Amino acid sequence: MERTVRDLGERKVIDGLARLLPSREDVAMGVGDDAAVVRAEGDTDLLLTTDPVVEGIHFLPGTPPELAGRKAVGRCLSDIAAMGGEPLWALIDLVAPSDTPMARVLGLYEGAAELARSAGLAIVGGDTSSGPALELHVFAVGRVPRGRALLRSGARPGERLYVTGRLGGSLAGRHLRFVPRLREGRWLRDGGWVGAMIDVSDGLATDVRHLLEQSGVGAVLDLNAVPVSPEARTASDGRSPVEHALFDGEDFELLFTVAEDRAAGFEAAWAAAFALECTAVGRTTDEPGVLRALDWQGRAAILEGDGYQHFLGEGSAS
Amino acid sequence: MERTVRDLGERKVIDGLARLLPSREDVAMGVGDDAAVVRAEGDTDLLLTTDPVVEGIHFLPGTPPELAGRKAVGRCLSDIAAMGGEPLWALIDLVAPSDTPMARVLGLYEGAAELARSAGLAIVGGDTSSGPALELHVFAVGRVPRGRALLRSGARPGERLYVTGRLGGSLAGRHLRFVPRLREGRWLRDGGWVGAMIDVSDGLATDVRHLLEQSGVGAVLDLNAVPVSPEARTASDGRSPVEHALFDGEDFELLFTVAEDRAAGFEAAWAAAFALECTAVGRTTDEPGVLRALDWQGRAAILEGDGYQHFLGEGSAS
Repeated sequence: MERTVRDLGERKVIDGLARLLPSREDVAMGVGDDAAVVRAEGDTDLLLTTDPVVEGIHFLPGTPPELAGRKAVGRCLSDIAAMGGEPLWALIDLVAPSDTPMARVLGLYEGAAELARSAGLAIVGGDTSSGPALELHVFAVGRVPRGRALLRSGARPGERLYVTGRLGGSLAGRHLRFVPRLREGRWLRDGGWVGAMIDVSDGLATDVRHLLEQSGVGAVLDLNAVPVSPEARTASDGRSPVEHALFDGEDFELLFTVAEDRAAGFEAAWAAAFALECTAVGRTTDEPGVLRALDWQGRAAILEGDGYQHFLGEGSAS
Repeated sequence: MERTVRDLGERKVIDGLARLLPSREDVAMGVGDDAAVVRAEGDTDLLLTTDPVVEGIHFLPGTPPELAGRKAVGRCLSDIAAMGGEPLWALIDLVAPSDTPMARVLGLYEGAAELARSAGLAIVGGDTSSGPALELHVFAVGRVPRGRALLRSGARPGERLYVTGRLGGSLAGRHLRFVPRLREGRWLRDGGWVGAMIDVSDGLATDVRHLLEQSGVGAVLDLNAVPVSPEARTASDGRSPVEHALFDGEDFELLFTVAEDRAAGFEAAWAAAFALECTAVGRTTDEPGVLRALDWQGRAAILEGDGYQHFLGEGSAS
């Protein structure tokens, strides 16, 4: 029987496609990080990223269009933040059924424009097409000084893992209203604090794994330390708050490593710079690709389970 | 009654959205040309463009996926060609129903990768989402020397209008197999031949109008001179070959102006450089926004009718 993308799941689909893609000498980082990194002239690397926001998947028919538009831009800005970059320019592709009220389309762009403006991101064009679902595809370009992008691959064993904010229960509303961590990402880059960084979009458990795989290290997560959001605590679906924090995704917080001997200095500097929480949630180890979790009794077990994957996760808005 | 995007049509939708968008000082050209132009470091301007390719609109369920993928990349390359640019990097957003065979998705990317490779365009990443229709959204970055992008706005009265190749009947197959005119676009830029340039994507009549509006000039098209494709001559739908050439769209040829006193030199240089046809089809005038057509008896009338617009053109694959 013919295999479908559902049979494979998003990760294997992407792995299968990535092998086909042509590169160039000026590509510093292609598929496999929060954004691609390409060498521009001068002392600049450009960050290129794109995110789809599809009605029925990333937002619902009842979602105010301003919030769906905000989310579309926010996802790209979160990718740029996770590279330690500054946003520059974006394009938007709109797909809409022909009976879409113009007021709804304007709402999408008003939400997108407002967040873009506040982040210094120009929206310089795009295109439109009719199609069966309402969708925005945002393509964004950011900038870092040459060689200074914060990659998923920079972690070494024995570093501390930190996460900003609180995790889980994003679907209750935060996935539409989150603030991309641009200031924090740039501050982390400028301070040279970070080994590796990623934004938490697929869920902490999954995004830690992405970081481990790219860095060739392992990790232990202390489940007692994971900062759980109020919405994750009050969810009444039979899953524990920490399960929500590990697996829900769409938190758009920053997850990063700091060398153990700089951890105290880092924590003091962070507290002086930001009101936002930043929590140590574990450490990297020398077991490549192995993710362990310390439970409430201090026992370390291999962490099972996974966050959201497109194609597999059909029907659930994420 | 609430107005829908169908009531307005693509052009008014885009005009309504463009007003909302935030800009930056380093944006040389935002909405309104084949690609946006932004100032990068060094002596470079970057070209940013995006094009959607949606099943049922830009290709059909029976279209070989390699050709649909090729078209998705080709549309962006044609935009870069029309600015006189060189392609650099691209991202691709994939939307696919979960029951899409993986072989079909691989076919899309194989077609996209092959054309990208031949044009020196790296595909450096992207994203995927489930959704109701199969779609590719390609975002591409190109380059020109600073200030050298060939804009739609550069025409003056009294220039000759040229078009490459032959027009009309693209739906018979050429819309899937066209060769983006990158070599020609760059040669035109390097030679300093061009006043204004655009690619013919919406139909000659419509794209001439875009050029006129941006340049603040008028034009007379000589309908006897319009180079008509063989497919447009053999179509048996009751429309004349020249109507196909004027209104079909998706030709992805270059339409540009050359100063009258350089026209002879230009034509000789073109003939020495390329086997591809390049045909004088009219001239610009000092009647801003007015497009006249010279018929077979040499009479000039205002040209009515329009090419393809999304939302209005529901249901017709273009």
